[in-house]
Amino acid sequence: MDNKLFATRVQPAVPSRLAGLFPVMNYPDAIKFTAGAPAESLFPADAMAQAYADAMAAEGNHTFQYHTVQGPVELRERLAQRAMDKMQIDHVTADNVMLTAGGQQGIDLVAKALLNKGDGIVVEAPTYVGALSSFDTYEPTYYEVELEDDGLNTDQLEATLKQHPEIKLLYTVADFHNPGGVTMSLAERQKVVELANQYNLIILEDTPYRELRYTGQSLPSIKHFDTEGRVIFLSSFSKILMPTLRTGWLVADKAVIQQLYKLKEAADLEVPNITAQAINHYLADNSLDEHIARLNKEYKVRMQAMIDACRKYLPAGVSATKPEGGFFTWVTVNSAINTTDLLYNEATPNQHIAYVPSKNFYAYKDHTNGMRLNFTGLTPTEIDTGMKRLGTLLTQAEQII
Amino acid sequence: MDNKLFATRVQPAVPSRLAGLFPVMNYPDAIKFTAGAPAESLFPADAMAQAYADAMAAEGNHTFQYHTVQGPVELRERLAQRAMDKMQIDHVTADNVMLTAGGQQGIDLVAKALLNKGDGIVVEAPTYVGALSSFDTYEPTYYEVELEDDGLNTDQLEATLKQHPEIKLLYTVADFHNPGGVTMSLAERQKVVELANQYNLIILEDTPYRELRYTGQSLPSIKHFDTEGRVIFLSSFSKILMPTLRTGWLVADKAVIQQLYKLKEAADLEVPNITAQAINHYLADNSLDEHIARLNKEYKVRMQAMIDACRKYLPAGVSATKPEGGFFTWVTVNSAINTTDLLYNEATPNQHIAYVPSKNFYAYKDHTNGMRLNFTGLTPTEIDTGMKRLGTLLTQAEQII
Repeated sequence: MDNKLFATRVQPAVPSRLAGLFPVMNYPDAIKFTAGAPAESLFPADAMAQAYADAMAAEGNHTFQYHTVQGPVELRERLAQRAMDKMQIDHVTADNVMLTAGGQQGIDLVAKALLNKGDGIVVEAPTYVGALSSFDTYEPTYYEVELEDDGLNTDQLEATLKQHPEIKLLYTVADFHNPGGVTMSLAERQKVVELANQYNLIILEDTPYRELRYTGQSLPSIKHFDTEGRVIFLSSFSKILMPTLRTGWLVADKAVIQQLYKLKEAADLEVPNITAQAINHYLADNSLDEHIARLNKEYKVRMQAMIDACRKYLPAGVSATKPEGGFFTWVTVNSAINTTDLLYNEATPNQHIAYVPSKNFYAYKDHTNGMRLNFTGLTPTEIDTGMKRLGTLLTQAEQII
Repeated sequence: MDNKLFATRVQPAVPSRLAGLFPVMNYPDAIKFTAGAPAESLFPADAMAQAYADAMAAEGNHTFQYHTVQGPVELRERLAQRAMDKMQIDHVTADNVMLTAGGQQGIDLVAKALLNKGDGIVVEAPTYVGALSSFDTYEPTYYEVELEDDGLNTDQLEATLKQHPEIKLLYTVADFHNPGGVTMSLAERQKVVELANQYNLIILEDTPYRELRYTGQSLPSIKHFDTEGRVIFLSSFSKILMPTLRTGWLVADKAVIQQLYKLKEAADLEVPNITAQAINHYLADNSLDEHIARLNKEYKVRMQAMIDACRKYLPAGVSATKPEGGFFTWVTVNSAINTTDLLYNEATPNQHIAYVPSKNFYAYKDHTNGMRLNFTGLTPTEIDTGMKRLGTLLTQAEQII
């Protein structure tokens, strides 16, 4: 193929933010803090296999036919109830719930509905790399707001909105931030909704980890404080059930969802009925809450191992966020250290450990002294061993600068 | 929710082309020629249920984990072989095959890669409504080229490209056109590739019905004649297996596919492994060719019933295309007759039949004297009865004008 010819017809290639995100390592004793995936040993595989079989048996051949862009109303009713029970969102019906192809499609359709080239979007710094990969497609202008221990810096957010009132969208991961590990405080949740009302902002509240809390008290969702239909609450089954279901769900005002359905029809026509019915059967015949409790029990041990190891092994001057749930902690090192270089030159070949370096999580890739560490994909022993190696590595690195 | 507020942040709503496409009828004896769905009585439901179970058994918990944007290489290898065997495309490897969420996502990602606001795209008149619904999202300028009995009018295409050399994309359904029912001739296939080379055009060849040929000889795909990597060949399992698999596949040059993977990652992250592995197991343990032969045997009888009924019942001055496969025939009536009005005022309430009126299939909705008739979703007796009613209706309508 004549690529030059084709290139004149295809839009300028945006470099993939996801390609090469995870370093390949060929050391048998390597310990990877890179995972973004749930621990598959905890999947309810037998129950889900049964749910698929039940779904096919219940509907027969019709299971496999075209259905609708909305998916089964029974599943959306269950999720509406869950939104009220677990997310503290009021007055949710099946018409307020939309099924998406993973949380990723929820992000993508909201971005598609809102963002034209150059439109303003606020993202946390750092933020979820997959969201950036979707936003990139619509060529927005990014405004970054610093992530702190109690969530995004709302003073910075306010100053940004005051200076750029044309900004349309705020994307935030309020619970157990990916990659930051922090959770937005109650006061900041209220504040972002106030700012949204004042500055005519839409908030996309992305909550894949929300129910994976291992210590402390659950906070109401941002959507809970929404009085003007400005918040789109997005959840997913990927982390609490299984990723291959590729099923996310969002809660929003009906008028918003009507718009998003049009975009979903154009993107992939409809919800796969077999998958949606399998989830529906799983939820009818199993307790999702009990399954999540099992996950949380195991993940809690791993999180504690990570918190202990951070305290034990990280040298002075290196800070780590202290998560209460989710998958990640975020480590900040001396600003003279480039964690990308460190990964490939030292961490991988010498210490046989890997992490995801910070620059991947910033809209403009200009923060190079952080790293994301996953703790749910490793045993406590692996965490201890790996963090000891990271401590050695960072102690050496701090001495060199 | 304050919709006016929200509206200032969301892009202007594009009316859905798909909403309300199929009229709702409450007559027990109603006959619907509206279907776009395959006959579900012919689905290999037991074999597919087994394939799902086998897929889960083979990989265990790992079945349900995150996998890759590409999906299983075994499935892509099978499809590469099929592209060479059945589509007469040369030198296809797994790297030239991309799995998509139904054919619809293939259309959408290609459009997303190519079309910015105002960019030129050629579509047939009429064309597939779902493709228009995706293209609409990117706000292109449409150029319509008339569909004839041997495919699109290549003289018109050439004149259009000469006048608008900035046009980027041609979308065509060359085999058993939806909604037109016609098939592009060999000469025209060669001609569109020549024009693409001359005018730096990309061709999206959408072929969901290609293997559903009931009479006559199969023609090489347009992609067969491609020497410059300009043709993207798109197929789907929806019509030859089952729609709920939501699995399409395209064949293109590797560099094109690399671009499309980036957009797929941004849109929905990856191929659902469980579905892809189920299809893979189905194809390993069953003969898809034999299944398609069964479909074609049954559909052939229905197509012949439709052709016979057109000859028998349609009044002089009304023309119907004569398909050799696929799902549809296209009927053209006197230009003074508006088939949308006729549907709602006469066909549905008085004759208890329904069809999809022509205006839905034109980019600018300005052709109102045609209708799409499906023949695969009805028995020969239903086709005969329904077409007799349509004949009565059209005879009356022609007398009034």
